[in-house]
Amino acid sequence: MFKRLCVIGTGLIGGSIARAAREQGLCEEIVAFGREKNLPNLQLAQELGVIDRFYTDIGLALHNADLVIVATPVGSMRSIFEAIKPYWHPEALYSDAGSTKGSVVEAVEAAFGHVPSNFVPAHPIAGAERSGVEAAQADLFRNRRLIITPLENTDAALVEKLSRFWQQIGSSVSLMSVEHHDTVLAATSHLPHILAFALVGLLGRKDEQREIFKYAAGGFKDFSRIASSDPTMWQDICLANKHEIIPLIQQFKAELSHIEQLLADDNTRQLFDTFTYARNARQRFLETFDD
Amino acid sequence: MFKRLCVIGTGLIGGSIARAAREQGLCEEIVAFGREKNLPNLQLAQELGVIDRFYTDIGLALHNADLVIVATPVGSMRSIFEAIKPYWHPEALYSDAGSTKGSVVEAVEAAFGHVPSNFVPAHPIAGAERSGVEAAQADLFRNRRLIITPLENTDAALVEKLSRFWQQIGSSVSLMSVEHHDTVLAATSHLPHILAFALVGLLGRKDEQREIFKYAAGGFKDFSRIASSDPTMWQDICLANKHEIIPLIQQFKAELSHIEQLLADDNTRQLFDTFTYARNARQRFLETFDD
Repeated sequence: MFKRLCVIGTGLIGGSIARAAREQGLCEEIVAFGREKNLPNLQLAQELGVIDRFYTDIGLALHNADLVIVATPVGSMRSIFEAIKPYWHPEALYSDAGSTKGSVVEAVEAAFGHVPSNFVPAHPIAGAERSGVEAAQADLFRNRRLIITPLENTDAALVEKLSRFWQQIGSSVSLMSVEHHDTVLAATSHLPHILAFALVGLLGRKDEQREIFKYAAGGFKDFSRIASSDPTMWQDICLANKHEIIPLIQQFKAELSHIEQLLADDNTRQLFDTFTYARNARQRFLETFDD
Repeated sequence: MFKRLCVIGTGLIGGSIARAAREQGLCEEIVAFGREKNLPNLQLAQELGVIDRFYTDIGLALHNADLVIVATPVGSMRSIFEAIKPYWHPEALYSDAGSTKGSVVEAVEAAFGHVPSNFVPAHPIAGAERSGVEAAQADLFRNRRLIITPLENTDAALVEKLSRFWQQIGSSVSLMSVEHHDTVLAATSHLPHILAFALVGLLGRKDEQREIFKYAAGGFKDFSRIASSDPTMWQDICLANKHEIIPLIQQFKAELSHIEQLLADDNTRQLFDTFTYARNARQRFLETFDD
């Protein structure tokens, strides 16, 4: 059990971590740090009982905290870690919830000149097209994966301690390298989000000229759901992991060009095979997902 | 009320039309035509009470039918209409449920040399990633759109009669030209399906080399749902409407190239604007969809 959890960033993810930790009785108290401009959100988080109290002074927020989780958009990580640095405590466990791990490790390195052994990078894989602390829920991470990407010098005991924390709030914990994480998530999460944003953008412009959305079906509703995700969060993720994402966009365009050619050639057979392979692959995914 | 509804093709769509028509008491009897190779499916449809009886002789199936609905993959429409032709009855109402309208009208024209005035092309916009008569349900079309695309010579009284039929099974009926239908559906349905098949195919090959699906989240599950759609049906749709779809694929690739460039340039501002526009467009779609 932790004495004091300090959550930095009380949106959907930070708020849900706080709610889950409280529900499972994992921390004696839960505080938050936020900047002045986020006062209304911090007040709401306190009113909703998500946190016990908040501070706009980071030194006060971190005082006596033995677990600190940074759950802000990944683009702000560097300034957050620079602000934390003067109050860094060698006995505390620091972690994050960023969707890209290479960029977070770089941010910590930029702030400290190295990555402290008591910083344990982590990423909860939980859907989040809703945003804000109002949407926070204690079971957001239940039956979801949590990936920890320890570095060579990361304290193994703290990796173990963080794993237990996430397991207690219902997650299934996997360990992998920073690089593997960023490669896998670029494919399964970042590229799909870009495709959804791109499609809904393209169709939105057509809809402005000539209404088309009213003739879209439930399939489009599901397909486009992730285009409702938070733009700031996703702008940060896409830029932070662009070295993985750009080659994937290129591969995807090649895939589309292939299908385009099959259509131009009336190649029924290969079109059938392509669609069948995809259908079977999704079935394999579903079997994994339902595990 | 119709005396005899003859459904040609008793999959999800044909089966659901039959179930809905029976539930609403719109037909005295419901029969189906199918080929020998589809016997197990026809028998199942009869056992499930979806149809009263079936015929593998099209002349018998069409005998006395005053409403005939062709609900087969669009690639087989021409041979179906050629088979129907000798039994065509000037007093009956013929329609279809094809997802592309230009190709269906062409198929009828190829079979008859012209499009008979008692053929009324129609398309129910209802999600269908499940397939087969087992999945058929009476409420599949409730609160869904049904598009009728009458030609110049189409009998207006029959358009009216078909509209009432679909309204009675819960659909909201819209009329538009064949060309407009195919343009709109290419954007809202055909392109999204191709993107889903292409993405799940690309990721499936990566997953074979190095497991990635286990780290995909609920967002990917929704996004990829339509990749579980029937490959034969979609191969037919994509080929039938390829003149609309190919330019859209090209526009979509250009959209992706634009985002790729924004990433390469670290253009945070425009990336934010692009994602925000898409998010707002989806909100507009949701408001339309919930109508």
